[in-house]
Amino acid sequence: MGHTFASRDELEGLYAEYNEALDDGAIERWPSFFATTSSYRVTTRENVERGWPMTLLHCESYGMILDRSVAIQKTLYFLPRMQRRVVSGIRVTREGPDLAHVRCSFAVFETLAGEHTKVLASGRAEDVVIRQEGALKFSERACVLDASLVPNSLPVPV
Amino acid sequence: MGHTFASRDELEGLYAEYNEALDDGAIERWPSFFATTSSYRVTTRENVERGWPMTLLHCESYGMILDRSVAIQKTLYFLPRMQRRVVSGIRVTREGPDLAHVRCSFAVFETLAGEHTKVLASGRAEDVVIRQEGALKFSERACVLDASLVPNSLPVPV
Amino acid sequence: MGHTFASRDELEGLYAEYNEALDDGAIERWPSFFATTSSYRVTTRENVERGWPMTLLHCESYGMILDRSVAIQKTLYFLPRMQRRVVSGIRVTREGPDLAHVRCSFAVFETLAGEHTKVLASGRAEDVVIRQEGALKFSERACVLDASLVPNSLPVPV
Repeated sequence: MGHTFASRDELEGLYAEYNEALDDGAIERWPSFFATTSSYRVTTRENVERGWPMTLLHCESYGMILDRSVAIQKTLYFLPRMQRRVVSGIRVTREGPDLAHVRCSFAVFETLAGEHTKVLASGRAEDVVIRQEGALKFSERACVLDASLVPNSLPVPV
Repeated sequence: MGHTFASRDELEGLYAEYNEALDDGAIERWPSFFATTSSYRVTTRENVERGWPMTLLHCESYGMILDRSVAIQKTLYFLPRMQRRVVSGIRVTREGPDLAHVRCSFAVFETLAGEHTKVLASGRAEDVVIRQEGALKFSERACVLDASLVPNSLPVPV
Repeated sequence: MGHTFASRDELEGLYAEYNEALDDGAIERWPSFFATTSSYRVTTRENVERGWPMTLLHCESYGMILDRSVAIQKTLYFLPRMQRRVVSGIRVTREGPDLAHVRCSFAVFETLAGEHTKVLASGRAEDVVIRQEGALKFSERACVLDASLVPNSLPVPV
């Protein structure tokens, strides 16, 4: 990984904080990880590999990310579920002076009240990271789930 | 992550060695990761979020950690189980010249003899790391499990 | 982790790219991660701990790794399965000026068409990494699976 744009330590920190916020159920903090011009997308490997244009979720602007965050906050409090994100293989695939394309793999575990912990989803993210007021932010985040079957609880962002 | 107290590489190394020891079933090495004044605690998210004071396991001193290690060694040899710890998002949340507060997420997998590998638990750790004779040690380690249902095989420390 | 031979960033990059290639199903890129003199081995913890000499797969030379890669390419296209590798605790256990012994833990998730994502396997790798024409390559890679029950889909390398 080159260090032109950001160190490994900084990038690992971005993903750690992002996942902490979501695992803690602090959806109101989710938009704060995105740049003021940004997009967020969730799709499946099957869609990508077959060239289908479908997405499970597509926020085309920061405003849509904010709206989504508010909508989730209104519904989520009724769901007693605990999520846990594990990230691996954070890697800069391409970078310039002002941005880095970052790829990583993830697994999400979920625990419903009174049940054992299960694998909810796995997949990869293909992100673009920029710097705004000194802090790293996602200007693009695209999550590609390995499963085509979408679990109920993925209204929560990955 | 600031580098006042310890580098990412050192911290990653601490968690890697700690998890290796437990995954290898070398419970006798478990206390060696703790400072001579230290504590270890396992609780659940439900307990933490509801403000309940309960813990699943609480070693309030290094002596209790040692005792626990001996007790586990006596019972564990009868259990043909393989564990595997995966850690993610190691992050210094606060640090001073002599210590760092570290948070991370974990998943533990377990394989019983003749069975397939399963998710045993997931959760987060909130630790305090200090330096003793040059080496990083836990002065506090608190593991918060996502599930309230406690699997049989978590007498083994996380 | 000492930095005599390779930085954490370089090592993390090697494992990230290796796992990406396998997760992407790009088996034809698998041999490119090995040195021109190298070996690859998959075994189980039970075999190792009981001192049994058995392996699930043993490529004793780079030529055998190439052969294996071609054989998998011929069969794999018929299997609609998605894999996802998560790695943790990458740690240099021993190093010299020209090589590093590296240990890490892994979990592999698998998603069959129309099904939910499951844990396929977990285990540890004990590798030897060298440098060839500037790039890190495996001169030895030994994967030790936690389960003795071998899942169908582990003709694909770990």
